[in-house]
Amino acid sequence: MTDSPAPRHEAPVRTIAFVQYPGLTPLDIVGPLQVFSLLSHLAPGYDTAVVGERIEPMATDTPLSLVPSHTFETMPDPYALIVPGGTVPTLAAMADEKLLDKLRTAAARSEIIGSVCTGSLLLAAAGLLQGRRANSHWNYRSLLAEFGAIPVAERWVRDENVITAAGVSAGIDLALHLVGELAGPDIARRVQLFLEYDPEPPFGPIDWAAADPGQYAPQRRKNLQRALADHPALLERLID
Amino acid sequence: MTDSPAPRHEAPVRTIAFVQYPGLTPLDIVGPLQVFSLLSHLAPGYDTAVVGERIEPMATDTPLSLVPSHTFETMPDPYALIVPGGTVPTLAAMADEKLLDKLRTAAARSEIIGSVCTGSLLLAAAGLLQGRRANSHWNYRSLLAEFGAIPVAERWVRDENVITAAGVSAGIDLALHLVGELAGPDIARRVQLFLEYDPEPPFGPIDWAAADPGQYAPQRRKNLQRALADHPALLERLID
Repeated sequence: MTDSPAPRHEAPVRTIAFVQYPGLTPLDIVGPLQVFSLLSHLAPGYDTAVVGERIEPMATDTPLSLVPSHTFETMPDPYALIVPGGTVPTLAAMADEKLLDKLRTAAARSEIIGSVCTGSLLLAAAGLLQGRRANSHWNYRSLLAEFGAIPVAERWVRDENVITAAGVSAGIDLALHLVGELAGPDIARRVQLFLEYDPEPPFGPIDWAAADPGQYAPQRRKNLQRALADHPALLERLID
Repeated sequence: MTDSPAPRHEAPVRTIAFVQYPGLTPLDIVGPLQVFSLLSHLAPGYDTAVVGERIEPMATDTPLSLVPSHTFETMPDPYALIVPGGTVPTLAAMADEKLLDKLRTAAARSEIIGSVCTGSLLLAAAGLLQGRRANSHWNYRSLLAEFGAIPVAERWVRDENVITAAGVSAGIDLALHLVGELAGPDIARRVQLFLEYDPEPPFGPIDWAAADPGQYAPQRRKNLQRALADHPALLERLID
């Protein structure tokens, strides 16, 4: 036998895993993925993965298709499992028992679970947000209560091992917050610097008066009807 | 001959086309793509495309692979052609004459050209930013001058038919600005609302004193050396 180097006893790598499914909103996944990907370059002990049912191109709600890096079976046990959202395909996935079951199994292997935008509706439909304070896209937030969660209108909400963000772009803020928790504010600020995340929305902050739920309720109803036409019981429960 | 319906004289569709190449930073492309994708849903006459040399999965600087929707040959003439950035693969692409040539040809078919982050270095290397005010990622901005452009440290810079953004996340602000120009501020605000783009960076604005160029100059030098090892003349020109 030749001498072999002594085994190195390193801390286990913490994997931040993002769930990919057909038709999602790619910014929901790519915003926080880019943040954690930088974390994995700036601090030891972190890694990222994108997890799908199969490693093959899947459509999004843009012309871009995405290919995950792992299946649920091949991914390492995640430190955090994060579910992105979308519009009609995400609402339809609330009734996709196969995907919900994958989420339940993957969540049981994860230390924390999280979501961006309507991804929280998938966690909720999987029964993972019972009694939890959580957020979602503003136009779908109130649906969380139908699954036993407590809707909270904050940019991101932490309740024990559950962290959920507001709509789409809020995933970036959630991710930077989590990087600060995990690796400290200095690393989080370096990630922010490298992403040049110093937002200047050209029309200023959102005018929330324009988000009058009455104005957008018909759109939500129409999207739910399109998504859940084959699931009348769930549709009935969720529709105003 | 049977009667055929009268031809409809609609305004031509304006396509916002994003260039995809291997190894890019996906947030550079997905941020503005998501903005323009919403524009195409909220206002008539707009479309988006993602353009690559081949329609096949390409790696990014995260575990996610992306698949474009068109090749340069099959894309419609773009209204705007936008080039995302990245780190070493983008710096290496400055010497990829085949890609630069595709960019020149595509730019000649576009009404405006733009970039996010170090994507401006590809426009610059293609000779498309001569005499133009332009921006890039803060750590690479000064390289623009080596290609005859005028570096400007603004979130986004418009100079005639050229619009370039600062690093990574600045593509979202550039895109919202352009939506406002094209479709008016009301539509831009609706896009912003649907993306819930009301940023709350958890550690506040960037502390630009921490971006001391002296601190990050070695990293830039190392990245240029890795990217351009086979192109010593260009490397010599760009290195401090």
